[in-house]
Amino acid sequence: MLTILFYIAIAAEAMTAALAAGRRKMDWFGVCLLACVTALGGGTIRDLFLGHYPLYWVKNPYILLLVCGAALATIALAQVVDRLRWTFLLLDALGLVVFTIIGCNIAIEMGTHPLIVLVAGMVTGIFGGILRDVLCNDVPLVFSSELYATVSIVTGAVYYFGLLAGLDANLVVILALAVGFPLRVVALIKKWEMPKFVYDKDLR
Amino acid sequence: MLTILFYIAIAAEAMTAALAAGRRKMDWFGVCLLACVTALGGGTIRDLFLGHYPLYWVKNPYILLLVCGAALATIALAQVVDRLRWTFLLLDALGLVVFTIIGCNIAIEMGTHPLIVLVAGMVTGIFGGILRDVLCNDVPLVFSSELYATVSIVTGAVYYFGLLAGLDANLVVILALAVGFPLRVVALIKKWEMPKFVYDKDLR
Amino acid sequence: MLTILFYIAIAAEAMTAALAAGRRKMDWFGVCLLACVTALGGGTIRDLFLGHYPLYWVKNPYILLLVCGAALATIALAQVVDRLRWTFLLLDALGLVVFTIIGCNIAIEMGTHPLIVLVAGMVTGIFGGILRDVLCNDVPLVFSSELYATVSIVTGAVYYFGLLAGLDANLVVILALAVGFPLRVVALIKKWEMPKFVYDKDLR
Repeated sequence: MLTILFYIAIAAEAMTAALAAGRRKMDWFGVCLLACVTALGGGTIRDLFLGHYPLYWVKNPYILLLVCGAALATIALAQVVDRLRWTFLLLDALGLVVFTIIGCNIAIEMGTHPLIVLVAGMVTGIFGGILRDVLCNDVPLVFSSELYATVSIVTGAVYYFGLLAGLDANLVVILALAVGFPLRVVALIKKWEMPKFVYDKDLR
Repeated sequence: MLTILFYIAIAAEAMTAALAAGRRKMDWFGVCLLACVTALGGGTIRDLFLGHYPLYWVKNPYILLLVCGAALATIALAQVVDRLRWTFLLLDALGLVVFTIIGCNIAIEMGTHPLIVLVAGMVTGIFGGILRDVLCNDVPLVFSSELYATVSIVTGAVYYFGLLAGLDANLVVILALAVGFPLRVVALIKKWEMPKFVYDKDLR
Repeated sequence: MLTILFYIAIAAEAMTAALAAGRRKMDWFGVCLLACVTALGGGTIRDLFLGHYPLYWVKNPYILLLVCGAALATIALAQVVDRLRWTFLLLDALGLVVFTIIGCNIAIEMGTHPLIVLVAGMVTGIFGGILRDVLCNDVPLVFSSELYATVSIVTGAVYYFGLLAGLDANLVVILALAVGFPLRVVALIKKWEMPKFVYDKDLR
């Protein structure tokens, strides 16, 4: 089940990246590249940090075709996309939670410290979007928007402590999804945000 | 022969990076650093992705001196450089094709999937320029300019399928150069571009 | 001693990053993430370049808590921070020198070429700040500000040649600190800068 959700999440991230590319008037190649960076970047950085070789898309390169296919489909479907705003936001929320669970899982399999498990989940969940924003020349949204990384940390904690408590692995996945996904959706609806730190003096 | 072309390409990338640094009024150190990132960044990211250690410039550090030398020479020669516009564009085109071939070659030696061979070539060819543009605070040119990544993919495909067909390795290198280099030059002259994806609604 | 200085330097980098985050009105999470990237990014990139696994913060994850703690403390203390301008600049200078020494040391232990030892020191010292500036959507300061990378290279050279000359390891650390730290401080006071390269024609 997680594998199916993973592919849906990858495709969803690719599609949101394609729309960001369209707003920067990129060409079709740029759309595909930005989609790859966004959809696969978080997992790639996690694998680099953990020394987890081969990288998952090097091992299973057909995932690149899925990403490029989803990105190009978005170009074709751009006209209907505005009617799908909430579909995208829901798929993106799903992607965040699924990526987090998968990232935590890989760190757990490698036997890392619990803190690193949470970091691995968060890096997998949010660094693709950070890379997308850097390439689009924006300050990453995740630094100042609605609860996003927090959702990833909560999801990771539920997953980790669920496994630690000896619960069935499938049940723990469902539990983590059932906590993380609604939390992100409610944060979107209610516009929950972390407190901001505003500092306007220049030390230099 | 490929080794000589490789050093020429490295120096050419370093020089174009130095000019970009000059447009941002960087100091001499910034010029050298941007040159290193541009000339060596693509190959570095490829090596990180493939887990191909030691990195090629760690193994052969004199390449760093070549890059910094070429960058500093550009400062001295800045006055004559505008007369050399086409020399630079040609050297840059050569660099793209040579980097691609070398990147594909390393992936082939590591026994990766054909798709990953093409990706390794493309990453080697274009990611140095992407890093340069990110550090200069621009949206990377490669996302929207004349055929560039496409040239890399075509070159990589010629190289891979040439070797697969059992042709002599040197012949295949010449073949890949003979397809990729003119393709890029013609694209520059004719201003061939990929179709753009323009999307101006903001989903957020 | 170096370990204690290392923790002080990590905390100092985290605090300067937190102030940069505050100038961009980031939320508390963004403050912590930017602090981690700034304080740990240089060492992380060095470890990736050298294939030095596990990464130091994966091996010792409590360092993440130190960074986030220092970042959050900065939010609480923001009111008194302007009176501490020079404290920060001195701590930042200390961080640069300490990070450089530690980076050189790891490269020496791995038996790399002397040039790579200097590069490892410099990457450890300055790449955290480069990543911070990229995420804040600025052209990195280090490309055009007062002597910074130069201080790192001088410190690394003193450290490397001191060890090569067979001096006692602790003495060499003190020597490198005694050269690098005052050099940076004097450069700040006297506004010493590298010569700039200014080039205002656009080749494209």
